[in-house]
Amino acid sequence: MTTVPPDTTPEELDAALTRASAAAPLLAGLAPSERAALLEAVATALDAAADELVPLAMEEAHYPEARCRGELGRTTFQLREFAELLRDGSYLEVAVDPADPEWGTPRPDVRRVLVPLGPVVVFGASNFPFAFATAGGDTASALAAGCPVVAKAHPGHPKLARRTAEIVVDALAGAGAPEGTFGLVHGVEAGRAAVLHPLTRAVGFTGSIPGGRALFDLAASRPDPIPFYGELGSVNPVFVTRAAMGARGDEVLQGYAESANMGAGQFCTKPGVVFLPEDAKLDALVADFAERGASSLLNDRVAQGFDRVLGGLVDHPATEVLVRGRRTDEGWSPSLLRTDLDSLLENADTLLEECFGPATLVVTYADERRLLEASGVLKGQLTVTVHGEEDDAVAPALLALGASVAGRVVWNGWPTGVAVTHAMTHGGPYPATTAPLHTSVGTTAIRRFLRPVTYQSVPQSLLPAVLRDDNPLGVPRRVDGAHPSV
Amino acid sequence: MTTVPPDTTPEELDAALTRASAAAPLLAGLAPSERAALLEAVATALDAAADELVPLAMEEAHYPEARCRGELGRTTFQLREFAELLRDGSYLEVAVDPADPEWGTPRPDVRRVLVPLGPVVVFGASNFPFAFATAGGDTASALAAGCPVVAKAHPGHPKLARRTAEIVVDALAGAGAPEGTFGLVHGVEAGRAAVLHPLTRAVGFTGSIPGGRALFDLAASRPDPIPFYGELGSVNPVFVTRAAMGARGDEVLQGYAESANMGAGQFCTKPGVVFLPEDAKLDALVADFAERGASSLLNDRVAQGFDRVLGGLVDHPATEVLVRGRRTDEGWSPSLLRTDLDSLLENADTLLEECFGPATLVVTYADERRLLEASGVLKGQLTVTVHGEEDDAVAPALLALGASVAGRVVWNGWPTGVAVTHAMTHGGPYPATTAPLHTSVGTTAIRRFLRPVTYQSVPQSLLPAVLRDDNPLGVPRRVDGAHPSV
Repeated sequence: MTTVPPDTTPEELDAALTRASAAAPLLAGLAPSERAALLEAVATALDAAADELVPLAMEEAHYPEARCRGELGRTTFQLREFAELLRDGSYLEVAVDPADPEWGTPRPDVRRVLVPLGPVVVFGASNFPFAFATAGGDTASALAAGCPVVAKAHPGHPKLARRTAEIVVDALAGAGAPEGTFGLVHGVEAGRAAVLHPLTRAVGFTGSIPGGRALFDLAASRPDPIPFYGELGSVNPVFVTRAAMGARGDEVLQGYAESANMGAGQFCTKPGVVFLPEDAKLDALVADFAERGASSLLNDRVAQGFDRVLGGLVDHPATEVLVRGRRTDEGWSPSLLRTDLDSLLENADTLLEECFGPATLVVTYADERRLLEASGVLKGQLTVTVHGEEDDAVAPALLALGASVAGRVVWNGWPTGVAVTHAMTHGGPYPATTAPLHTSVGTTAIRRFLRPVTYQSVPQSLLPAVLRDDNPLGVPRRVDGAHPSV
Repeated sequence: MTTVPPDTTPEELDAALTRASAAAPLLAGLAPSERAALLEAVATALDAAADELVPLAMEEAHYPEARCRGELGRTTFQLREFAELLRDGSYLEVAVDPADPEWGTPRPDVRRVLVPLGPVVVFGASNFPFAFATAGGDTASALAAGCPVVAKAHPGHPKLARRTAEIVVDALAGAGAPEGTFGLVHGVEAGRAAVLHPLTRAVGFTGSIPGGRALFDLAASRPDPIPFYGELGSVNPVFVTRAAMGARGDEVLQGYAESANMGAGQFCTKPGVVFLPEDAKLDALVADFAERGASSLLNDRVAQGFDRVLGGLVDHPATEVLVRGRRTDEGWSPSLLRTDLDSLLENADTLLEECFGPATLVVTYADERRLLEASGVLKGQLTVTVHGEEDDAVAPALLALGASVAGRVVWNGWPTGVAVTHAMTHGGPYPATTAPLHTSVGTTAIRRFLRPVTYQSVPQSLLPAVLRDDNPLGVPRRVDGAHPSV
């Protein structure tokens, strides 16, 4: 029987960051392929511990087994993806500009490479106890970059966090990583103190807007402000055109119900606001929502937040309740609400608040050209989705609207499910994230934890190996502005 | 006779940002090669106006003509460099990942490209009235990215700023740029209001630590925080090893005097703190400083700040004044001070404050291995320089120290003079900058004003041209993780 870990004391936190700081130059000094081996060792160890970890996740996050096993697989896949990225080496963005007396400015030999920032503090999410938590994407990308990680355990799954951390620490040690490469802390105060700790060089966070903003403000208030990569909130608007609804309305509404209720609506990419023609037949959608059973929510805090936001939507004079979910002993059954475009535009602050849990809002429209007015009220989003036909007159403008407010624009699909791949963006303007230049999913997530350093006129024997003319690590380089090659 | 422009009113500021915001989608919608033509038109117009602009710069910044002409040349070279970068297209970081049912996560077709952030507010520097001001590097990189710019005129050269802006606006209009692509505002309050304006999407700043930090804090305090790229302050430590001093001490000290006094010491890359062996003969260095004449400083504010910081150094019990510069009718003559390593370590906060102007501090050391202790007190720097011999035992550790605190590490050279090239980094950890991931000089400076957007499952006919399979713009792309190619 495992117990809930106690809060980390200030002394323990300081020790964890001191160890991380001591590990930083050693971890940075490893060749990328050596760090790749560390990531793979962690992946192997986590996979091997699935039968131990999955039950802990089921117990603490109240997800079914298949979901937990799938998410663990995603997590270890992600670690291996970063290992592959390290072996390729192009993520280092090496550029070599030989001296050139004919250049438009004085130009000595200059060579650029990305180097790790130093210790990173990672705040995991409640809703992905594996993939966005202790050994999730932020941790994987920071370690890949060469940054030691101090993870803050999410209070929703402290036992899983602790066991995951033990496995990570053991795997790293077994693979020869510097001591202090990974640590775990518990408790709200330890989290705040970690953001303010002088040795912390960056923060990764996945969670709510209020929680993330409070920590962002702390990071910005430091004597030396540090990058804060927060993935906060999004309502992930979905625009369904008249033509799409006419061509395959049943399929669209069925997909909507599936996506909105995935994980009991506890996805940051849940389609929270779906624009449909006002004459769309919603009977089947309503029946689908009404027939769905109850699901446990992640934890009491999520449940309280959900109750509060849903209550506000239900009580709002501009909404109509199509299905009122109920709370039973098994949890919450889904809710479906409706408003119209004018009401949304007039009450955007309230109606566009993220409702994290099993509830979603249909917005009906009369004139689909007026959908573009939504751009005036939509804040930054992780995703915008368009269901349309290729010859839809309004489709190009809706896609452009999507690109202007979101990090990902989805066509005729659903935003839940984020591919871990090179071209992925899981990010967006505030409040989707606090750092619109970046993504927290996909291989370019590593860029958050690297900064450029340029070596000027340094002789071959004193250059880092990655910058030497003989390129012993075989890293792709941009020489004199040409496209990267080995 | 030109007059000093009045402060911009709140209404005028709002109008400028509203025009910029209206221009944003139009500017973003241009092909990169079309934006390249705009930048080239600006460069041509500024070059053509040299005989008008240079006298204004000489009058307002008190620099000699050659310096002003050289700096204008650097400025227009920079604009043309970004034009070339746009024509190449690799800066867009296009990645195409075809759908793959065998992938470790569900993987539809996803395609990534960088898009402009939107209107950027640029605060120019006092000390580079061309290259880091109205039409300087921040403006060039933001326009190249596709972001309209509202520049805040530096109060040290308001007339030059106004005339430069007129030329930029005319050149952009003549080349077919959207109205509102560039605007200029004047006054402290307009600057603060611009950082807080809802339509502003990012800020570029070059200036002092207090000024930059105040604006950074404003940007972070917004309801929607925005990226703030501030290049603030640096003392640019230079380590001279015993071996280097022995091999070519005269040359090193001569280079030191030249670099430290360039532009009357008003370079952000001035070598402000130079570590020399305690037995180094400083007579020639002292004579060199003592013989140098007086130079005007940029403006009264710079002069007052210089007086204050220099006074603190002179009065500090741990320093010895080797040359006490004087204020004459012609301006300030240079000062040279000395302390020792132990005193520096004990009084780092005071002795390592940037002294912007003609003064520099020699730090003598007895044991060169103890130089590494400086890493404990050095904050983030734009540059660290090492003068050594290739077989110096201490050189590798000093170079590593440099890379750990600075954006650029210089070997056997001087930090003044920043090549505008692909591999350059003009940046570093706080307080060198507020954004350690970035550079404000060199082609990668464009990355500050771009964010990624991923298109998922969007049909060919609805994709932006740059992401289509037929690649009509001929942009290099990373397909399925392979190295970029056209």
